[in-house]
Amino acid sequence: MAAGALMAAEMAEQPARLAALAAAWEDTAGRVARIRPSPLAGTVIVARGSSDHAGAYGRYLIELVSRRPVALAAPSLLTLYDARTDHTGYLAVAISQSGRTPEIAATLERMCESGAAGVAITNDADSPLAADAALALPLGAGDEQAVPATKTVTATMAMLALVAAGLGRPPFGADDLRRLADAVAAVLDDPDPADAAADRLAECGRLVTVARGLMLSAALEAALKLKETTRIVAEGLSAADLRHGPIAVIEPGFPVVAMHAAGPARADVVELVAELRDRGAEVLEIADTPDAALPLPTGIPEGLAPILAVVRAQQLALALARRRGLDPDAPAGLTKVTAT
Amino acid sequence: MAAGALMAAEMAEQPARLAALAAAWEDTAGRVARIRPSPLAGTVIVARGSSDHAGAYGRYLIELVSRRPVALAAPSLLTLYDARTDHTGYLAVAISQSGRTPEIAATLERMCESGAAGVAITNDADSPLAADAALALPLGAGDEQAVPATKTVTATMAMLALVAAGLGRPPFGADDLRRLADAVAAVLDDPDPADAAADRLAECGRLVTVARGLMLSAALEAALKLKETTRIVAEGLSAADLRHGPIAVIEPGFPVVAMHAAGPARADVVELVAELRDRGAEVLEIADTPDAALPLPTGIPEGLAPILAVVRAQQLALALARRRGLDPDAPAGLTKVTAT
Repeated sequence: MAAGALMAAEMAEQPARLAALAAAWEDTAGRVARIRPSPLAGTVIVARGSSDHAGAYGRYLIELVSRRPVALAAPSLLTLYDARTDHTGYLAVAISQSGRTPEIAATLERMCESGAAGVAITNDADSPLAADAALALPLGAGDEQAVPATKTVTATMAMLALVAAGLGRPPFGADDLRRLADAVAAVLDDPDPADAAADRLAECGRLVTVARGLMLSAALEAALKLKETTRIVAEGLSAADLRHGPIAVIEPGFPVVAMHAAGPARADVVELVAELRDRGAEVLEIADTPDAALPLPTGIPEGLAPILAVVRAQQLALALARRRGLDPDAPAGLTKVTAT
Repeated sequence: MAAGALMAAEMAEQPARLAALAAAWEDTAGRVARIRPSPLAGTVIVARGSSDHAGAYGRYLIELVSRRPVALAAPSLLTLYDARTDHTGYLAVAISQSGRTPEIAATLERMCESGAAGVAITNDADSPLAADAALALPLGAGDEQAVPATKTVTATMAMLALVAAGLGRPPFGADDLRRLADAVAAVLDDPDPADAAADRLAECGRLVTVARGLMLSAALEAALKLKETTRIVAEGLSAADLRHGPIAVIEPGFPVVAMHAAGPARADVVELVAELRDRGAEVLEIADTPDAALPLPTGIPEGLAPILAVVRAQQLALALARRRGLDPDAPAGLTKVTAT
């Protein structure tokens, strides 16, 4: 089998899965609304790895619509320190592709025991994680065999949009999610920009990805996908955090992948891109602008654009791994379910 | 002036400042207890850069003692997206060395307007941030002139321990904080291990720092300090997150700085260190164990050990910058106050 054949096949399933989730919009939102604590004290999101980056998307979106603070959980507090956190009034959203990462299941269980209304987002409806939750939201993405998660990541992000729809009024609707599915198909049908970018990055050993706001989740996920598949030391940072120190590492020729879409966070990233180019950085943009090296279809609301940007980043990781002679389906030393 | 003279001088002030904060334990805890919302819905921490890593320490400690969830804020939600988050019942802890980072001051102001009890931790009692807060906790660390924050970081972490003491019962007391001040002095009086480590890392271009639980904050801060002063692309990761994908980048010879202290999180990090050495990684430990390349004095409770580990990491950053012919006092392209 060709290098990356599994990853490519699983990426290709994304438009259909996103369209199916768009069709489940109303039903899912209704189920979330019924278990939402009232009054709502806040939301905690529990995840690791790619799921944690999908969680970063949910972190912004759910706070925006629920109008109460959202936290990304620190599982070790419950699993190692035996913290007696009281989760009364909280919605706890746990994300695990396999539903079998012991730490995630144990954390959700503790949160539910201490008062949280638990939601499990998982690809396995029969998993321990789903059993712990008041509401299980199966992704229905089918078995994922390539080690780097792709279709389950975008399905999780879309599912978080549906969760948000049960907690308030997101700045987009089911129709937009349907249009996103088409836009994802358009990106997948257009591999040339990723191949060209892979040529430019073929020799690089380190890289920074940067974005802001909702799009930050895509930058975090892009960095992880590049680390997993290409062994490039890629760090994802918010534009604001990059300015607070890490910008010191950006020397002439340093590669940066900057991600943005039409919306409130764009101006800050565009300004940073200009600063980085002044320093001589080699900036590749993933953006819905005509001059972006890795262009995105226009007309997708910023609230859904991170899903589209993640797909472009998957395509870049796949192309770059192949360009570097690596098989992204089975990176050295990684397994599909992490037992921590 | 010698390269790094300012940074070294400011690092040397840390024991006295920590001792002064130990003396302020009871008074500070009492002031925090008086403004604590009751019932407490949760805590949000607002910060960027080094302050955000001190915030990561506070995130664990405050949830442990307050027994309600803690979130690290996403400032862009309030400053860019105009999110209407209701902070009723929340304690909001904002951290800014200068108290003049506009984004941090604007975020705390919005949180207080929407119901939060605001605490400002800052080195400038007359700053806009202090003015916004119901309770201002000045660090009293004196002017910090070197661009990489050192004495204000450890003072902030100690202040967060005092805040925790106002919200519950931390797993250490004022006496332990006094002993920490002495242990910090002992580390500063023992520069040889950092010099030896700097020799080993002299040519490296990339590096990972890793820890878990409370100590994660120190790993994040160590990575930032190395980026700022040495231009090494250093990423700080939790041991659990490293296993979920990023471990793919760890090839033979890859340098890793692993940090741990006696406590519930140590076993997981020690196990990871063995795995990384099996992969051929060059692991340097910052730990209170006799065989650590960068040893820490023993007998400091794990809840305060991250402060000690941060000082070792400062010492490493200083030594490594000098070894690489860079002046850590004024890294290229960084300024002391970041206007975002």
